[in-house]
Amino acid sequence: MTYCVALRLKAGLVMLSDTRTNAGIDSVSKFRKMFTWCVPGERALCLMTAGNLSITQSVITTLQEQIDDPNFVGDTMLTAPSLYRAAEILAQAMRDVMAKYAEGINSAGENSGASIILAGQRKGGKLRLYMIYSAGNFIEASEDTPFFQIGGFKYGKPILDRVVTEETSLEDGKTAAMLSMDSTLRSNLAVGMPLDLCVIPTSKYELSEYRRIEAEDPNFRALSEAWSQELRDSFVKMRAMPK
Amino acid sequence: MTYCVALRLKAGLVMLSDTRTNAGIDSVSKFRKMFTWCVPGERALCLMTAGNLSITQSVITTLQEQIDDPNFVGDTMLTAPSLYRAAEILAQAMRDVMAKYAEGINSAGENSGASIILAGQRKGGKLRLYMIYSAGNFIEASEDTPFFQIGGFKYGKPILDRVVTEETSLEDGKTAAMLSMDSTLRSNLAVGMPLDLCVIPTSKYELSEYRRIEAEDPNFRALSEAWSQELRDSFVKMRAMPK
Repeated sequence: MTYCVALRLKAGLVMLSDTRTNAGIDSVSKFRKMFTWCVPGERALCLMTAGNLSITQSVITTLQEQIDDPNFVGDTMLTAPSLYRAAEILAQAMRDVMAKYAEGINSAGENSGASIILAGQRKGGKLRLYMIYSAGNFIEASEDTPFFQIGGFKYGKPILDRVVTEETSLEDGKTAAMLSMDSTLRSNLAVGMPLDLCVIPTSKYELSEYRRIEAEDPNFRALSEAWSQELRDSFVKMRAMPK
Repeated sequence: MTYCVALRLKAGLVMLSDTRTNAGIDSVSKFRKMFTWCVPGERALCLMTAGNLSITQSVITTLQEQIDDPNFVGDTMLTAPSLYRAAEILAQAMRDVMAKYAEGINSAGENSGASIILAGQRKGGKLRLYMIYSAGNFIEASEDTPFFQIGGFKYGKPILDRVVTEETSLEDGKTAAMLSMDSTLRSNLAVGMPLDLCVIPTSKYELSEYRRIEAEDPNFRALSEAWSQELRDSFVKMRAMPK
């Protein structure tokens, strides 16, 4: 399992992912699910993956090889003239990898499904947030839906539904993403620390934050405990309400 | 979809269910999913259903026919010498109904899956909370897991994980169940008002509450709004925490 959440706010993008993967309940590993490409002042991209790890790793490798190959003909994630075009390149890589492996994976009784969130901005364009599905089709977040989630998303959705709008600040967005992750970590063992956090402020074309939050991170732990205490205190206040 | 939650507290049982069913997204109806049997001072039972409605309705009808048939030979839900035996009777009804209909339903491409929560107490016995699966197997809630959920349970689980223990009072249990339902209602359109609430206090062998909470219920609405406001206020307090 996995949990990744991406907020597209007027102030910028906030992305947060866990790092736990499991093949069955008895084979648990730690893998990065967040990847970034940045040309400071020109373009900043962040990508998060969920689903079959062999599929998503192959997609990432394909995209990186296109960037690294001096003889590659065509647009890459770093040269695409628009974020929409970058999403198309990613979607094409998804289709190519799926065409190669999905049938074999499925016939072995495994799940080849994968989904990828792509977010970023290039100079001259707007902030964009896309969700790319296994079939290579994709959707874009609109002002009505300022966040996308992939993986085990349900535990962490209520807090986002209640507090996140396009107007939410980057700092509040980080908090909302962390609390959404915290609820998921508590209820779903298949989602686990450490976390990867990325923040891309609007029209800066840079990653203003890109860091790992370790399991023993004192700030995250303090936030988690403070939130728990607040929820319990809020719950006690509900005693006064007639039911 | 459906959402039902049952808490087994030292003080008693709290059960809450929604009433929305849907066959696809464009066929939404209202059906009772909570059923009770009570011989005051002797036995109080409450049952909640999720999954294929034709299956669960047939199970309920089978159990009621056994009770109503003066010539029925064997234990019924009202005469079973233990709650475990009542769970066995329910499980047998599930197996009989499944044997009759499941293959046909499945071959039509529909899902015959169903699950039922059974809770109650008979004089001389303990409070019991069981979950019965499609195959007619069942499990009982233990002191480590004081609640069961069926249907679309994930949105409403974080609040239960945080505030419910065996020691929780009946009033707090009602509040927790309602807030868990409120989070689910907000995030999952396939779960809808009105709600059915049942409370069975320990060793009273009666339903101290058994009522419908309508969509326009002013108390439920006020609780929902107060909780939202508390969550937003709590969220704002998190601004002071370093991240």
